[in-house]
Amino acid sequence: MGKRLLVIGGVAAGPKAAAKAKRCDPQMEVVIYQGEEEISYAGCGLPYFISGVIKDRERLISRTPGKFALDGIKVLRGRRIEEINIKGKTISGKNLESGELFEDRFDRLVLATGAEPIRPKIEGIDLRNIFYLRSIFDADAILQAMQSERITDVVIAGGGYIGLEMAESLIQLGKKVTIVELAPQILTLFDEDFAAVLRQYLEAKGVQIFTSEGIQALTGRDGRVTRVRTSAREIEAHAVLMSLGVRPRIDLARKTGLKIGETGAVWVNERMETSVEGIYAAGDCAETTHLITGKKVWVPLGSTANKQGRVAGVNLCGGHAVFPGVMGTAIFKVFDFNVAKTGLSMREAEKEELHPIQAIVRGYDRAHYYPGGKESTLKVIADQKTGRVLGGQAIGEGPSDKLIDILAMTLHGKMTAQELANVDLAYAPPFSPALSPVIVAANVLTNKIEGKVKGIQLAEAWERLSTSGGSFEVLDVREEDEVAKKRIPGSTWIPLGKLGKQVGELNKKKEIAVHCESGLRSYKACLKLQEQGFENVKNVDGGMLCWCDEPEGKG
Amino acid sequence: MGKRLLVIGGVAAGPKAAAKAKRCDPQMEVVIYQGEEEISYAGCGLPYFISGVIKDRERLISRTPGKFALDGIKVLRGRRIEEINIKGKTISGKNLESGELFEDRFDRLVLATGAEPIRPKIEGIDLRNIFYLRSIFDADAILQAMQSERITDVVIAGGGYIGLEMAESLIQLGKKVTIVELAPQILTLFDEDFAAVLRQYLEAKGVQIFTSEGIQALTGRDGRVTRVRTSAREIEAHAVLMSLGVRPRIDLARKTGLKIGETGAVWVNERMETSVEGIYAAGDCAETTHLITGKKVWVPLGSTANKQGRVAGVNLCGGHAVFPGVMGTAIFKVFDFNVAKTGLSMREAEKEELHPIQAIVRGYDRAHYYPGGKESTLKVIADQKTGRVLGGQAIGEGPSDKLIDILAMTLHGKMTAQELANVDLAYAPPFSPALSPVIVAANVLTNKIEGKVKGIQLAEAWERLSTSGGSFEVLDVREEDEVAKKRIPGSTWIPLGKLGKQVGELNKKKEIAVHCESGLRSYKACLKLQEQGFENVKNVDGGMLCWCDEPEGKG
Repeated sequence: MGKRLLVIGGVAAGPKAAAKAKRCDPQMEVVIYQGEEEISYAGCGLPYFISGVIKDRERLISRTPGKFALDGIKVLRGRRIEEINIKGKTISGKNLESGELFEDRFDRLVLATGAEPIRPKIEGIDLRNIFYLRSIFDADAILQAMQSERITDVVIAGGGYIGLEMAESLIQLGKKVTIVELAPQILTLFDEDFAAVLRQYLEAKGVQIFTSEGIQALTGRDGRVTRVRTSAREIEAHAVLMSLGVRPRIDLARKTGLKIGETGAVWVNERMETSVEGIYAAGDCAETTHLITGKKVWVPLGSTANKQGRVAGVNLCGGHAVFPGVMGTAIFKVFDFNVAKTGLSMREAEKEELHPIQAIVRGYDRAHYYPGGKESTLKVIADQKTGRVLGGQAIGEGPSDKLIDILAMTLHGKMTAQELANVDLAYAPPFSPALSPVIVAANVLTNKIEGKVKGIQLAEAWERLSTSGGSFEVLDVREEDEVAKKRIPGSTWIPLGKLGKQVGELNKKKEIAVHCESGLRSYKACLKLQEQGFENVKNVDGGMLCWCDEPEGKG
Repeated sequence: MGKRLLVIGGVAAGPKAAAKAKRCDPQMEVVIYQGEEEISYAGCGLPYFISGVIKDRERLISRTPGKFALDGIKVLRGRRIEEINIKGKTISGKNLESGELFEDRFDRLVLATGAEPIRPKIEGIDLRNIFYLRSIFDADAILQAMQSERITDVVIAGGGYIGLEMAESLIQLGKKVTIVELAPQILTLFDEDFAAVLRQYLEAKGVQIFTSEGIQALTGRDGRVTRVRTSAREIEAHAVLMSLGVRPRIDLARKTGLKIGETGAVWVNERMETSVEGIYAAGDCAETTHLITGKKVWVPLGSTANKQGRVAGVNLCGGHAVFPGVMGTAIFKVFDFNVAKTGLSMREAEKEELHPIQAIVRGYDRAHYYPGGKESTLKVIADQKTGRVLGGQAIGEGPSDKLIDILAMTLHGKMTAQELANVDLAYAPPFSPALSPVIVAANVLTNKIEGKVKGIQLAEAWERLSTSGGSFEVLDVREEDEVAKKRIPGSTWIPLGKLGKQVGELNKKKEIAVHCESGLRSYKACLKLQEQGFENVKNVDGGMLCWCDEPEGKG
């Protein structure tokens, strides 16, 4: 008889590990235990189910227990596992319907217990119409509640990407939506410039956003939530979605004595094996390694869960597979904006004591002359000393997914900006500009690394202009029609073509930040000024691409 | 005074080199000589200009001479350069309008003379309405001719991607289009299975295609072409587009004594410098290195030209930049199919005496439950011995560009299939399945490398079935509704779910090629059969994904 594999958890990593193990070793007895009544569902699809983009709930279920049975995998639902006996190689748990206790034995075990939403201990948290979004049942509950006409005002606690996706879903359902975020910006994994662009976009779509505000209490009437009290105001709310993040579900692992890592998730090696031989962990309950920093991280994502589940499945059959780690790649769609990231942000790179520099360029999806084009703004970050590419961010209606995937592969290949500048990407007019935006960005980075022109971040230029009392100047070298549309208040305007004649109007003693729309003309202007003996000129990264009419901190 | 740079050629690489040099060294005098009357135009956009997708001819011109002048670059059009004097550092040429001869001196020179269409020496080649598509003036001429109602039947000589793009453009203009290709398949850079899928698609769009047929003569009336005679038939033709490929324009380089490489294009080093110091070559006239094979290749592409131009521009100013080579990445759009490739095909890898294996999978652009999805078929090729990824091909309405770019970066990173299986790509339901198609393909390759189940190409399985006289069997394990739609003639049908009960119907002594729709169920079936003692089972690569109703050679 074959070995017996028990899998605890039936959403993503668990079923994947089970299926892979059964294919690797058809003799193996495989049982999946799942606390909930549904298994193998698409957690990442839930916001789209709520918004109505995905109409059929069944579509979210990848595989039913019947399909698992066809492959010889047994699925036991509604069973909560309460104890693991390492020495005796048994588990015990409770049938949630009948209340009966049960036991089972194993040769191999996979923990795929997932993550759970953070539930803050604040006043009123137990009122009705306070929601979390983690399981398909949470989605059912939200959807049902949102059909009520009494619920018109919804507050979302937390401006991470689940909160933002849900903001769109709820706007689509006709709700008035307010996001309250404790941090000074939404989307804290992104740099503040990109977060500000997204904020402006969401506000234009009707989402109200308050940052640097913690939720202090929820108040209600007749047991239902009616208002949210933050550190700065009270907001009417007929429902509240708590999306303050998730944490790994590790009670069982901790109780069992499995090593918990520094991130608070279950420690595993590259083979996804825990501190106890024969017991594996995969998916949202397990930690992993960040491949840029080399540090342990906990990044719960469906794609990672699938890969880790497969690796665990191979190894528990005696095979050899490794999951080396993640790059921190993430993407989400909110309205028509595609927002994506890989690797480190500027802020994260600075924390790692690297020397990050950035290029911000237009990320077109086709040749400029091919009609129907869409554009994202692309940021690529590299280390000034080594040239190594550290990360990237993309935002807009354009091909953020493709650009970030190219950058994720750049990171996997440990490439420098100089190397990235010459990669052989697919070019034809309907698919890309002749030079891919990542190549343009790599060229900008290469120029910076070679030190021809220094860069300055837009936010810093703005702040210096506002506070330096005249020793700092922002020079706009765009054309008249561009300046008429939007302009940085207090900037000096000389179009590039007139710079030669009007250079006398500028003061060589001042520090000058030059900008245009996207950075190329201002780069040329910087070169011209340096030639004329200006020693303290800087090119504003990405020009006006990240300029917001009312950016955070701009007052 | 600064150094004097002359650039010969004004379409892509030339202007790029000029602009970069001027930015690197603003003191440099820069002059671009161009034989034609237009410069800096988008050669790759011409088919879309002819089809009417791009309506405004001006849009194809990236930069006018006036714009170059703003950057201090002089453009001299209508001048053909006829000689280069290396020792004297001069060039001489002719003003094509006035007929005057002129001379100019240089410190640095960039040759960017491009490529020219191959003009076969066949009977009737000088008749009217025989066209080539290379310059914007060629496009003007074709467009003008196609507006004539007398031209209804057009023959395209050559089934490469310019020919295929033009087939679409001409169908859009209401013409009857016939492609005649000398090779046994269209699109010879791709494997025959993918070429067959494209052929079937084009035929369904109304394009008539004849392969293995050379054009022997063109016949005409009143000086205009009326018929095309091939080795097999005569075809009515009011116009003929000769798209038999291009060759590097190297007359000037050869006359000057510059080294010509083994590919027939101008030899350059990684810095884009020719065999003569101070003289650079870039773009379609220069050869480069294939980064997988390490061999010299000549791959004329607009994207490569831009990169090479930049590298030449940096180096001729005394900077240091390298262009290491290409991966053979290419993409084109024909009707709604996106067709792309990077690295080596199976056939090319075999020629290099590598040991290529392939995975063919569905290339979805989003999660299966997210509506509106589009799909390409994706092939990924790896070396059986080292696991290193060697190339890929994608075809269909789906995200071929993104998938091939990920693979191109895989090649740049010198990654193995095992490494590719765990890369951290951007996942959210609107953008990708949880496991990207390239990861699924990498997993299939990993399984093959580990030798669990052997693979067989569809064409081979079909041929063996047709010729083996009963010792070879094709087993279809799909469901009834799938089999009803399309089926390989002569195959045995047992759905996967019934394989356990019906296994007795199969003969263990036979070689059995198992297939399903895309390869996963047949993989499971192979495992089951192997478990039952079948020793000679193989999984058909990609199942029915590349099955054509009337594929070439299926007859």
